[in-house]
Amino acid sequence: MKGHSAPIKSVEFNADGRMLVSAADDKLVKIWSVEEMKFIQSFTGHQNWVKSAQFSSDSRMVASGSDDRTVRLWDVSHGGK
Amino acid sequence: MKGHSAPIKSVEFNADGRMLVSAADDKLVKIWSVEEMKFIQSFTGHQNWVKSAQFSSDSRMVASGSDDRTVRLWDVSHGGK
Amino acid sequence: MKGHSAPIKSVEFNADGRMLVSAADDKLVKIWSVEEMKFIQSFTGHQNWVKSAQFSSDSRMVASGSDDRTVRLWDVSHGGK
Amino acid sequence: MKGHSAPIKSVEFNADGRMLVSAADDKLVKIWSVEEMKFIQSFTGHQNWVKSAQFSSDSRMVASGSDDRTVRLWDVSHGGK
Repeated sequence: MKGHSAPIKSVEFNADGRMLVSAADDKLVKIWSVEEMKFIQSFTGHQNWVKSAQFSSDSRMVASGSDDRTVRLWDVSHGGK
Repeated sequence: MKGHSAPIKSVEFNADGRMLVSAADDKLVKIWSVEEMKFIQSFTGHQNWVKSAQFSSDSRMVASGSDDRTVRLWDVSHGGK
Repeated sequence: MKGHSAPIKSVEFNADGRMLVSAADDKLVKIWSVEEMKFIQSFTGHQNWVKSAQFSSDSRMVASGSDDRTVRLWDVSHGGK
Repeated sequence: MKGHSAPIKSVEFNADGRMLVSAADDKLVKIWSVEEMKFIQSFTGHQNWVKSAQFSSDSRMVASGSDDRTVRLWDVSHGGK
């Protein structure tokens, strides 16, 4: 699966293994569907490399930490695009 | 959510997804409330970059490891400030 | 256990602790049997250092992220070779 | 808690939160008691920086990955010294 324009620093499954979250040096956090093997959603906002991203245990949120010195929370529940 | 004055190396949820712990190059470990989306608590003591921080499964403690060569345990139960 | 030809960046157990997945700078993701303490399977395809690899909760898949800018999914169910 | 002679790269709790495992640039993997807040056990063998270490879900083993290109399994069950 393609999707980032820079090295990827972290990849993690959500609890039921149906989604992946990736964090990369292109400042993006991305969500992937495992079953369909395709890109679902991109979270833009970080101003620098993203080093770490993780789903909450209920898979409704993603938290990320970046070289831009911010911790961000993203709402996954809207899914799709 | 702002909160660190240097790149963030690690972000992790606690077991029920209500708190986050972040570790950063500003030598701090910070706790965040997910529901209120705000900063709760800062643990100071590390003398160098903090590379890793994690909640215990009961969310009462946080462990962190740093470039200062120490492993530290922090008591989360006092909450607040 | 030997097995990579370059520094290893990540090692993680699967849920029942019977397998390990390792990610390394030799562009490979490898699966190991904990009980037999031996190498099981190698996933080739990444074009650059692999920074992160993780089992899904049912241990049927492994996800990896690399400096080659791709997220990859690997099918563990075939086991063996 | 002191214990490593070089920067620490990873710290993780075991499943019940009673032990910690740390991986560091001093080539060592160390086990810590959370309750007693003291050092329990050191695993020596890696020939270079240890980047990652993790308990198995039953806490009987620790796996580690290093810049020495090896994945190693350590038996925690003997505890103590």
